[in-house]
Amino acid sequence: MFGSTETPLAPVRHSRRADWAAGQAISYLMRQGVENPQCLSLAAGLVDATTLPVETVRRAAEIVLSDQAWGRHALQYGHTSGAERLRKSLLAHFAALEGRSVDDLGIELDQVILTNGSQQFLSLVAQVLLDPGDLCLVASPTYFVFLGTVAGVGAQSVCIETDESGMQPEALDAKLAELNAAGELNRVKLIYLVSDFENPSGYSLSAERRRQIVEIANKWSREQRIHILEDAAYRELRYDGDPSPSVRSCDATGESVIYAGTFSKSFSPGLRVGFGIAPNGLVEAICARKGNEDFGSAHLNQQIVATVLEEGWYVPHTNVVRMGYRTKRDALLAALDREFAGLDGVTWVRPDGGLYVWMSLPERIDTGFESSLFERASKIEQVMYVPGELCYGDESGTRPRHQMRLSFGVLDPHSLSEAVARLARAVRGVM
Amino acid sequence: MFGSTETPLAPVRHSRRADWAAGQAISYLMRQGVENPQCLSLAAGLVDATTLPVETVRRAAEIVLSDQAWGRHALQYGHTSGAERLRKSLLAHFAALEGRSVDDLGIELDQVILTNGSQQFLSLVAQVLLDPGDLCLVASPTYFVFLGTVAGVGAQSVCIETDESGMQPEALDAKLAELNAAGELNRVKLIYLVSDFENPSGYSLSAERRRQIVEIANKWSREQRIHILEDAAYRELRYDGDPSPSVRSCDATGESVIYAGTFSKSFSPGLRVGFGIAPNGLVEAICARKGNEDFGSAHLNQQIVATVLEEGWYVPHTNVVRMGYRTKRDALLAALDREFAGLDGVTWVRPDGGLYVWMSLPERIDTGFESSLFERASKIEQVMYVPGELCYGDESGTRPRHQMRLSFGVLDPHSLSEAVARLARAVRGVM
Repeated sequence: MFGSTETPLAPVRHSRRADWAAGQAISYLMRQGVENPQCLSLAAGLVDATTLPVETVRRAAEIVLSDQAWGRHALQYGHTSGAERLRKSLLAHFAALEGRSVDDLGIELDQVILTNGSQQFLSLVAQVLLDPGDLCLVASPTYFVFLGTVAGVGAQSVCIETDESGMQPEALDAKLAELNAAGELNRVKLIYLVSDFENPSGYSLSAERRRQIVEIANKWSREQRIHILEDAAYRELRYDGDPSPSVRSCDATGESVIYAGTFSKSFSPGLRVGFGIAPNGLVEAICARKGNEDFGSAHLNQQIVATVLEEGWYVPHTNVVRMGYRTKRDALLAALDREFAGLDGVTWVRPDGGLYVWMSLPERIDTGFESSLFERASKIEQVMYVPGELCYGDESGTRPRHQMRLSFGVLDPHSLSEAVARLARAVRGVM
Repeated sequence: MFGSTETPLAPVRHSRRADWAAGQAISYLMRQGVENPQCLSLAAGLVDATTLPVETVRRAAEIVLSDQAWGRHALQYGHTSGAERLRKSLLAHFAALEGRSVDDLGIELDQVILTNGSQQFLSLVAQVLLDPGDLCLVASPTYFVFLGTVAGVGAQSVCIETDESGMQPEALDAKLAELNAAGELNRVKLIYLVSDFENPSGYSLSAERRRQIVEIANKWSREQRIHILEDAAYRELRYDGDPSPSVRSCDATGESVIYAGTFSKSFSPGLRVGFGIAPNGLVEAICARKGNEDFGSAHLNQQIVATVLEEGWYVPHTNVVRMGYRTKRDALLAALDREFAGLDGVTWVRPDGGLYVWMSLPERIDTGFESSLFERASKIEQVMYVPGELCYGDESGTRPRHQMRLSFGVLDPHSLSEAVARLARAVRGVM
């Protein structure tokens, strides 16, 4: 015998990385959205269930799996970077969004990497670029899940002043000059941008700023490259106005901007098909890290999405999705106009796309998980929102605590109206 | 203007983690298997295409997607830890493999975590337990991809002497005593075991050793827990002899052993549905890390596999799969008996299950990627194998270089016979 199993158990020691990843809000919020149907959720980042393409996916799966050879191919391991067939279709789709030809893009197929939603791509980029203590510059506010991804590798996020045209180039340039003067420039590895309809603010980066930010990143890439990570998750959810070419297309060399896209918002999150377009200098590192993590994403799902694109079913579907969300955005905005009329100091952004409305209350009203507003809203009025303070980086000066993100993703127009009425009662209750 | 885009580009600096993950053999080997159909592959870890359950998956997908509500549910985001329905079915299936009732297992549903194949689960465990410089004790030889996973978080793998009954408890105990005497015990976080038909050796851990290794881990868990990670990937691919209960079932508290399982080998790798059963003390950390990486694996695929289990289609399928692989194992062994007859110093293991035959040549014959044998085999004879030296950990004393892993996963019996004839010609050529 080597010992007794009756010895009391020694404590578990997690890695530092596990500690960095702990306690983030996304799991809590997603669980709320899934598990509390009685609470009207303006918080959940789920997509509208009625937009989900059940019949389209059924037909595509039937095509792939009715053919024995194709079916076997789909059920076998694929490449770490994903099925070539889907990567080809994706590149053609990306070119169409840019209003260019595939040849004109100058992007090789092996720069396109398929992942489990775009979140895995964002996570892989964070892992291959950020060491503990490194800095990632972000808009203010920005996507709170990505802030958790940065924290999860032990790096820090630094807020750059942001307005309705997105991250301010002057503020970005000034921050980089400040870090350079402090001898800290070599800690900066990444600038993260949600270029269209930022989550949570709804702001889009203007065409001019897209070019300027690429210039600034290149200018301050002295001893080492400062990459830009462009998160285009909401690009295809535009309801008003004209689209801009991506930040990626402002990058003449193609070596500075990393582009992340997804089918989760415009098609189906349950397929977990996202992708990235990486500069040549990062492809190998991202694929090596992905090889460590899972050898590649679900091959069957890639074949299903490739079929949907090739059959020409995708674009018509996104048109229907856009019409639905546009109606819901308008319902939410109309309810806000009605229910919050006469409440001084309450303002909100009218977004041209995406899934979110960003609302500010008077500064004295705290919206956090521990606040009496959150308590009143979630427990008494039965309505959930995302506290705005989650959406600010580590180094943000005074973190605003009086804002909230309202999503029109899940609820139907009638429920949106009811949810806003409940929220207004909660706000009036604490004001 | 903030600068010029004509500035020469600064060099890219990867994170240390990216450097740790670089240059691993798995991507190279998988690509060989997929891209070189003219080269007979005894290397590829792909499964036999003829075993892939195309019709079964087609029917399951049809069931899930023919129902509008169920289809929408499957195409929506799920929980980070995966669909409850599949986790329930899995627990029942696991209980059946153990010959126990679900109640008797004492495992809560939230201890079951669904991942992108079991590789993601192994990677998550490595991430939440191993800091750079930490140690993971492994069999000698062991699964080379997991060695890459350990290296990918900056930790080191330490080889423990191994024989046909698996890792030697006495050697494990002696190594832990040695590390303790050197004041290094606090670096040891994990013992990794492939309990059935180890990849590459084909060895299974005897029932007695399963108990002993749990005792040893508990005995040396002084200031902190030493967890055991049991990789049961090949458990359901047994062709001879009686199954043993898992190492997990030797763990009275359920807090020391982490169990990893998969549907990739017994059903379909292209679905990327794997799972782990984690001790309570690790569930939250693993889910938090997974939340950072992808918010959860493909929900549709989980619903498909749950349907397959609930309809009772899974177990009959594995019976067919086993019969096919058994025939192929026998074909490979018969070809080895025939083709290597009279070659002194060439030996191989006759495995009771799994997908691999482990072969040793005389010590003077190098089998590595750079060796003349590998060159002759892959270029002249057109046959691929996995060099044995890949399968030894970082701290392995003198790393043996005269072995090879032969897989009977992909090729049919006739091609296996031809591949062995080619390999024997290559070996005779260098001897």
